[in-house]
Amino acid sequence: MAWTRKHLLDIESLAAEEIVTVLDTARAFKAVGERAIKKVPALRGRTIVNLFVEPSTRTRISFELAEQRLSADIINFSTEASSFKKGETLKDTARNLEALNADFIVIRHSASGAPHFLSRVLQAGVINAGDGAHEHPTQALLDAFTIREHKGKIAGLNVTILGDILYSRVARSNIWALTKLGARVTLCGPSTLVPRTFEQLGCRVTYDVDEAIAGADIIHLLRIQHERQRQTMFPSIHEYAQLFGLNQARLARTRPDALIMHPGPINRGVEIDSEIADCGRSLILEQVTNGLAVRMAALFLLNGGKGPHEVTGD
Amino acid sequence: MAWTRKHLLDIESLAAEEIVTVLDTARAFKAVGERAIKKVPALRGRTIVNLFVEPSTRTRISFELAEQRLSADIINFSTEASSFKKGETLKDTARNLEALNADFIVIRHSASGAPHFLSRVLQAGVINAGDGAHEHPTQALLDAFTIREHKGKIAGLNVTILGDILYSRVARSNIWALTKLGARVTLCGPSTLVPRTFEQLGCRVTYDVDEAIAGADIIHLLRIQHERQRQTMFPSIHEYAQLFGLNQARLARTRPDALIMHPGPINRGVEIDSEIADCGRSLILEQVTNGLAVRMAALFLLNGGKGPHEVTGD
Amino acid sequence: MAWTRKHLLDIESLAAEEIVTVLDTARAFKAVGERAIKKVPALRGRTIVNLFVEPSTRTRISFELAEQRLSADIINFSTEASSFKKGETLKDTARNLEALNADFIVIRHSASGAPHFLSRVLQAGVINAGDGAHEHPTQALLDAFTIREHKGKIAGLNVTILGDILYSRVARSNIWALTKLGARVTLCGPSTLVPRTFEQLGCRVTYDVDEAIAGADIIHLLRIQHERQRQTMFPSIHEYAQLFGLNQARLARTRPDALIMHPGPINRGVEIDSEIADCGRSLILEQVTNGLAVRMAALFLLNGGKGPHEVTGD
Repeated sequence: MAWTRKHLLDIESLAAEEIVTVLDTARAFKAVGERAIKKVPALRGRTIVNLFVEPSTRTRISFELAEQRLSADIINFSTEASSFKKGETLKDTARNLEALNADFIVIRHSASGAPHFLSRVLQAGVINAGDGAHEHPTQALLDAFTIREHKGKIAGLNVTILGDILYSRVARSNIWALTKLGARVTLCGPSTLVPRTFEQLGCRVTYDVDEAIAGADIIHLLRIQHERQRQTMFPSIHEYAQLFGLNQARLARTRPDALIMHPGPINRGVEIDSEIADCGRSLILEQVTNGLAVRMAALFLLNGGKGPHEVTGD
Repeated sequence: MAWTRKHLLDIESLAAEEIVTVLDTARAFKAVGERAIKKVPALRGRTIVNLFVEPSTRTRISFELAEQRLSADIINFSTEASSFKKGETLKDTARNLEALNADFIVIRHSASGAPHFLSRVLQAGVINAGDGAHEHPTQALLDAFTIREHKGKIAGLNVTILGDILYSRVARSNIWALTKLGARVTLCGPSTLVPRTFEQLGCRVTYDVDEAIAGADIIHLLRIQHERQRQTMFPSIHEYAQLFGLNQARLARTRPDALIMHPGPINRGVEIDSEIADCGRSLILEQVTNGLAVRMAALFLLNGGKGPHEVTGD
Repeated sequence: MAWTRKHLLDIESLAAEEIVTVLDTARAFKAVGERAIKKVPALRGRTIVNLFVEPSTRTRISFELAEQRLSADIINFSTEASSFKKGETLKDTARNLEALNADFIVIRHSASGAPHFLSRVLQAGVINAGDGAHEHPTQALLDAFTIREHKGKIAGLNVTILGDILYSRVARSNIWALTKLGARVTLCGPSTLVPRTFEQLGCRVTYDVDEAIAGADIIHLLRIQHERQRQTMFPSIHEYAQLFGLNQARLARTRPDALIMHPGPINRGVEIDSEIADCGRSLILEQVTNGLAVRMAALFLLNGGKGPHEVTGD
């Protein structure tokens, strides 16, 4: 399916065929990342603004490197750079950045819907790099890409997402992507963080972690964001690790071909045991690598590329 | 007139013909910014240091993007990066940066005259990106460029600059540029911020805002820098907005073809009403766009380009 | 001698012939830095991560510009960017960066041995940009390069290093490089900062500064890091300047062809008199210029370049 969208705002509004187009295009870009010269001229002379109003290093670096490998010109604008937005609204900041002939604005913002708002007031293409607890579409695309690379398909797989679902944009985007692509999604975690309302999105909700991971093809662990005062939602980090952390005893009860994913950065000994994070069934570092390919693909398609057959070297 | 200068330190020392050469060259670069590939190889392999000793995001980003579009290699050095200048004088810092074979140093500094000082001790070309309350030459050039684009000329126009003139390098550079190019400049604002001594620069000074804007072709509003403890100079932001802010009632009394300018970032509801900032007579975002073209032109000329006829694509 | 190493971790493990290969290659790159187009395509499409876990601006800028001039893609990752390493070990941070298909990791870290550790857990090439009080190999290489440019050789020269030897990675790397290349190294400074144990590295230790500099061909001054609470090691900055600072009276007692070096940034009036820092016998700014050439050479060789004969323009 040829890509026709100007913005990448969420997974919810994408058709399954559009997701597949991104994944297929990312496959071609992953091959570029394995070459000695990891660069194509596809976006030469285009200007991309990375507007990170919420702190982020991992995602920003991944986008920035994807943009460099597409040969774009890049402006990094983060909250530390506060003088730009002194007294300015998000709209004014974004329109001022767009006035620099920006072709794309990659935005991370603590407010859900900020990218959608910008897409309505700007001419530039807008890419959501995470908005509040709403969506993080490129994360879900890289997760789907990683699963497909290993399992050959997504339809029919059992995927269990474990952790702080309630506040997680990673979980929301993954739920949309995985259910659209035909996976069966199970959510598990402390009941305060996994409300039953998520069943309305087509997921199964359970609070029995051993049951949740028993039949899973993919176990997707979310990061416990203990720096964000989530302690009120569960008694302690220690108790979380005991009740929901993936340790050797739990791993022994999973299917032998179940694979482990995590959006990073991991808390060793909390949501995942250290040796499991590094074992052959962990896809964590591959997710990082694939993130680059998926972001290159998304930018390439938003810039008018039609699909994987158009990805060319230089 | 062919450009022969090595530095761009201020507007005061430029001849009118030199200003026109920059504006004509900027016209050619504005066309580059409207192409899909907004890039020329003019400064490929040249090294530019952005030395921002005073915080700035807007101007730094504009210079950085101009430099990228000229294909230069770029080093950003800002005050946050304090370890370089630990115990170092400005001269030592600049000479160390120059020792990296820098071709140009773009400097913003809170001390008036800092760029002139550097131009005497360095071999590299020096560009003033704002020095204290002295000058901000590229801002005045982009403002003159914007006026000329819309009015077709500058000579004979009535330009009113409204606000904190006393501490404004934007005002000073604009006064020099506009009077050299034959405009009639009126200054207006609270009497504490608009001393009569400015009449010596060839301007008219008035404290009657309605009279100041009545016959203006261009109304140039300055930002009220309320974060810089200017409150001692006027009673309150609210009173400033009442007495000097551009609101609908005041706008109704201006000429229908009067255009509104502001160096940004704007304080909506203080120096300008929100709807006026966004109306068809506001040139505010165009100033941002033109800033890029003017800065590309300045760097191109300082690098040995003779004028607009030499601006070539790649 | 053809270069075969994948990492540049220290000077201690290098053979003299390897050091000479770097210096010879740097000579070719210095010529590149003197051209109008100071750029070669040698590392185009390679990704270099500058991982600065300890604050640094000078060294980071020098590496970054060297990387730009080799046409590499660059990711800067510094401690300010703390969200990446929230809860992450150095190993996890580095492996995540490597998962972005990084070809090289340039690391500065406050812990001695951090680069060696990374070289064991990563596939990427690792370059030590300063580790604790251990080594700073590119600094020693640029110092050796600078000496050889001026004296035509290093073997047989008398080099005196003056200052805080105990905590100085610059001193350690210089001692290794200079003794391997056949220089006679004298160390001098306050006895609390110049322990006799350094004699085991093949140096002469003296506490008589006038004797130390009397026969020196090269006087290498170290920076007094008064921001790092070294005051407990000597009575006062003033007393240090009196007892060990290079002033006119001391300079008069040196050989007329003795040259002055300093890794910067200098404390004028402390370890060196202001006029001596700027005199014709000071190589301080040349060291900065040569740092670029040496870092380009190191990256070029680690990337598979065999030696100076392979350095080509674009």
